[in-house]
Amino acid sequence: MTAERLLAIAALTLVSAVPAHAAESQGWNRTVRIADHLEPALPHPEQQQAVLKKLQQLAAKTGRKPNILIILVDDMGYGDVGCNGGGAMAGAPTPNIDALAQGGLRLTSAYATPLCTPTRAALNTGRIPARSGLTRPLLASDRPTKNPWADEVSAAKLLSDSGYVTALSGKWHVGEGEGMQPHQVGYDEFHGFLSVVSEYTQYMMPRKYEQLVKAPEKLKTYKSLSEYNAVVSGKKGEKLTIDYPLETSKQMGNCDQDFANWSVDFIKRSAEAKKPFYLVHAFAKVHFDNFAGDGYEGRSPAKLPYKDAVVEVDDIVGRLIATLKETGQLENTLVFFTSDNGPEEDSYPDCGYTPFRGSKGTTWEGGVRVPGVAYWPGVIKPGRVSDGLFDLMDLFNTSLALGGIVDKIPTERYIDGIDQTSFLLNDDGESNRQAVFCYNQADFSGLRWDSFKAYFKVQLSEQPFTNISMSTYVPVGVSPWVFDIYRDPKERRTMSNSDYEWAYGPVLQMQSEHAKTFVKYPAKDIGLGIGAPDTH
Amino acid sequence: MTAERLLAIAALTLVSAVPAHAAESQGWNRTVRIADHLEPALPHPEQQQAVLKKLQQLAAKTGRKPNILIILVDDMGYGDVGCNGGGAMAGAPTPNIDALAQGGLRLTSAYATPLCTPTRAALNTGRIPARSGLTRPLLASDRPTKNPWADEVSAAKLLSDSGYVTALSGKWHVGEGEGMQPHQVGYDEFHGFLSVVSEYTQYMMPRKYEQLVKAPEKLKTYKSLSEYNAVVSGKKGEKLTIDYPLETSKQMGNCDQDFANWSVDFIKRSAEAKKPFYLVHAFAKVHFDNFAGDGYEGRSPAKLPYKDAVVEVDDIVGRLIATLKETGQLENTLVFFTSDNGPEEDSYPDCGYTPFRGSKGTTWEGGVRVPGVAYWPGVIKPGRVSDGLFDLMDLFNTSLALGGIVDKIPTERYIDGIDQTSFLLNDDGESNRQAVFCYNQADFSGLRWDSFKAYFKVQLSEQPFTNISMSTYVPVGVSPWVFDIYRDPKERRTMSNSDYEWAYGPVLQMQSEHAKTFVKYPAKDIGLGIGAPDTH
Repeated sequence: MTAERLLAIAALTLVSAVPAHAAESQGWNRTVRIADHLEPALPHPEQQQAVLKKLQQLAAKTGRKPNILIILVDDMGYGDVGCNGGGAMAGAPTPNIDALAQGGLRLTSAYATPLCTPTRAALNTGRIPARSGLTRPLLASDRPTKNPWADEVSAAKLLSDSGYVTALSGKWHVGEGEGMQPHQVGYDEFHGFLSVVSEYTQYMMPRKYEQLVKAPEKLKTYKSLSEYNAVVSGKKGEKLTIDYPLETSKQMGNCDQDFANWSVDFIKRSAEAKKPFYLVHAFAKVHFDNFAGDGYEGRSPAKLPYKDAVVEVDDIVGRLIATLKETGQLENTLVFFTSDNGPEEDSYPDCGYTPFRGSKGTTWEGGVRVPGVAYWPGVIKPGRVSDGLFDLMDLFNTSLALGGIVDKIPTERYIDGIDQTSFLLNDDGESNRQAVFCYNQADFSGLRWDSFKAYFKVQLSEQPFTNISMSTYVPVGVSPWVFDIYRDPKERRTMSNSDYEWAYGPVLQMQSEHAKTFVKYPAKDIGLGIGAPDTH
Repeated sequence: MTAERLLAIAALTLVSAVPAHAAESQGWNRTVRIADHLEPALPHPEQQQAVLKKLQQLAAKTGRKPNILIILVDDMGYGDVGCNGGGAMAGAPTPNIDALAQGGLRLTSAYATPLCTPTRAALNTGRIPARSGLTRPLLASDRPTKNPWADEVSAAKLLSDSGYVTALSGKWHVGEGEGMQPHQVGYDEFHGFLSVVSEYTQYMMPRKYEQLVKAPEKLKTYKSLSEYNAVVSGKKGEKLTIDYPLETSKQMGNCDQDFANWSVDFIKRSAEAKKPFYLVHAFAKVHFDNFAGDGYEGRSPAKLPYKDAVVEVDDIVGRLIATLKETGQLENTLVFFTSDNGPEEDSYPDCGYTPFRGSKGTTWEGGVRVPGVAYWPGVIKPGRVSDGLFDLMDLFNTSLALGGIVDKIPTERYIDGIDQTSFLLNDDGESNRQAVFCYNQADFSGLRWDSFKAYFKVQLSEQPFTNISMSTYVPVGVSPWVFDIYRDPKERRTMSNSDYEWAYGPVLQMQSEHAKTFVKYPAKDIGLGIGAPDTH
């Protein structure tokens, strides 16, 4: 590849960022919309230029586009990692993840959706789940009336089309049926399983689920739900192959080691092939029920299966980073570590931890605020910490920007993601995102803006845990509930009608501007019933 | 000083640690009691030897005993510092404190008492406050029937007697009256104030306290409560001098800068005098009401006075460390950063943050778990994190051990502190403390042991905040409430009677062994009434 071509790629890298001349103030609202179908962003022309230069220099040095490694843990709580206050405090140290944070950028305000499938859908498509129809966890038994992927475009596909090797290692959970599998929607390679841990594990635990395991008819029903009770592999254009069944706790416990081995091999192959890669390493762990991989039982100080799983995840993160280093790719790879939602507290006591209110399945901070660490030695300044807003769907745009193909972003659909390249990579980068919109499945619940979280509907619980199964979802009173996260991180007391009344204007305007995008670009109903967009 | 003398000092350093031959197992209870008046400790002969060697080598190199710098913030929450999950997340970054944690040992289970005065009393005397009588905050208007210091011995006194220069900079709050002032109880030098910020600040805030400020008689009463509305100085053997009044918000806001200047000067003077020092730098901040020092107003992203104060505290920590470095003493100084109790939430919204349940004034984790960072380049391995138990009163014994004067510990009174030198300084040191006993003023409330927190009495609140002013203190039912902090850091659900029933035995035994120490060494009543030990 010629130096000219590389510079051209680098120049293209940031065209999705807002051009400086477009940065006209609109009063309090500092975002600029550059196209109908693109989410407005905050303009930061100076950091954009600085990062462009940095990437040009790197491209000139490496002669290759940068790799992208997204490490996605399942159901890990914001607080589980040591760098966010957990780790040793919560009985499961995470030295490898903490080292990424110390060596890179720790995001204290990275947001996911409250649930697995919608977060994964958003990350892959750059779109709010109501737009793709993937608004709630796809159960293995779900048979959508419409394949949501028939008209969705993944970052993996666009990157694959442009010369990247793209792969998903581990859990998919964005469609088990024909036409919805990873290697059918953009990933060149896939090795993992199609559903979610708990679709496989319940018959492995006779003491926990004896009402199921000892009832033959129920057990038969349960086993019939998933078409593939197995770890499978797929390659673009080829049929899925079954590698081994997920029938025992040993198989389930060791599958993350298998996925790690696969990813290590993939990273090595990519290095040998001298091709840039886009790898989503999606853990099976720490979703319930957790079984230890060989050698990990009782490894955590807490001696709980969940906590042992945290230790195992941390070790694997260390292995992936070591492989990047061994293959000489560490300085040409953006590593992004995160989780798909808050901790799942129905499964207490064997579950994760968040310092915030609520948990998985809720739009409280505990449900949607996730660990977020961006690591790229030589590019991201070590030791950065930022409370700038980041939505995991921003990884769609950011990945395309790094791949130099923002011109390939589809124009006929709404893209909710924002290119955060300049935020992540500039030494003191600021977020290009003004607000994060939070949904309960297809339903708009509230938004985070600046240090405020504003709710129009909230999840309430009579139990000590605001968990999925025992919370109600209700509209608030006459005014939004506004919390200032800085002064009340645990969202215990809003003073909306006194201290924050001034914020009603911006909050209401942001939600109505957001709602307007659905007029031109409607939500999609794929026939999931409950939790689906109300498009009838 | 000869090399022989230095080695002798170093050898003495650790005699309070448990001798190896005493390490006889007593079943589940692994502690060993080496004297009636000393709290039993966990024996760690190997780490004790390793640290002894390390200190001998350092003493041979420096030719001086090590300095001790205790940095004590007032009312700062566990979560306020970035390294514990707050910082940028909570609207007030703390890069200097975080750097200490990254460069040293972060303690995730450092415990204080729930209140200012008792914690300071314990830190100074190594004794549970019920023993000294200093069980609740001394108000400026308190006139104890008995001077608690008449028969208490401070670490400062013992260190001063053995060649250290000892000083208190900032807030005292362990007695305003004659015979109770810092320079009268062991500190060679004192510069600060005798009471607490809020005894001075209320008349400075007409918009917050207008019911006081606009009522002349009330205001007169308020102003008459404290004998010294001023920053004062004292030297051992000399009378207190008044430096300047604390009458304006500007004076109050800037006093921490004054204390910082004083400490910087003290550290420099000690270096020039070639004498080891013991300095307690006790911030006025972040106790309400907070007024910004010059240049700090609005400095925090949160733009709240409390949060600006956090930023100011962090900057001053940076200045103190820089002074140690400039004077060549950084590698011969144990720096210990902490706070005297959990965040004070009565003053919400202008208050601190803890991820835990409860706050200042309660024995919930939020009330007693405090930031704890030990920093000593070249001696403490960087990047250590430990959940080992540490009670701030352990600083009494640890300081004496570092000063090589454990033989000077008084023998006719009970010492609850434990020498934690080998825990803090060994590369993978483990805590020498088996349990932390938590008191609500003079009343035993519960204990922390391993990952368990067990309660016999709890503070409950109907409000979203379990704060001092609106909580009740009540006995639990037939069995202790036991929480496993690792699986439930927020103490939301105990499963005492199922999962933890086995722990009742050890918990009950530890509390009864603890109670027995009061038979031979009774509590002391200094006439404070409410909150005093029930010794009648």
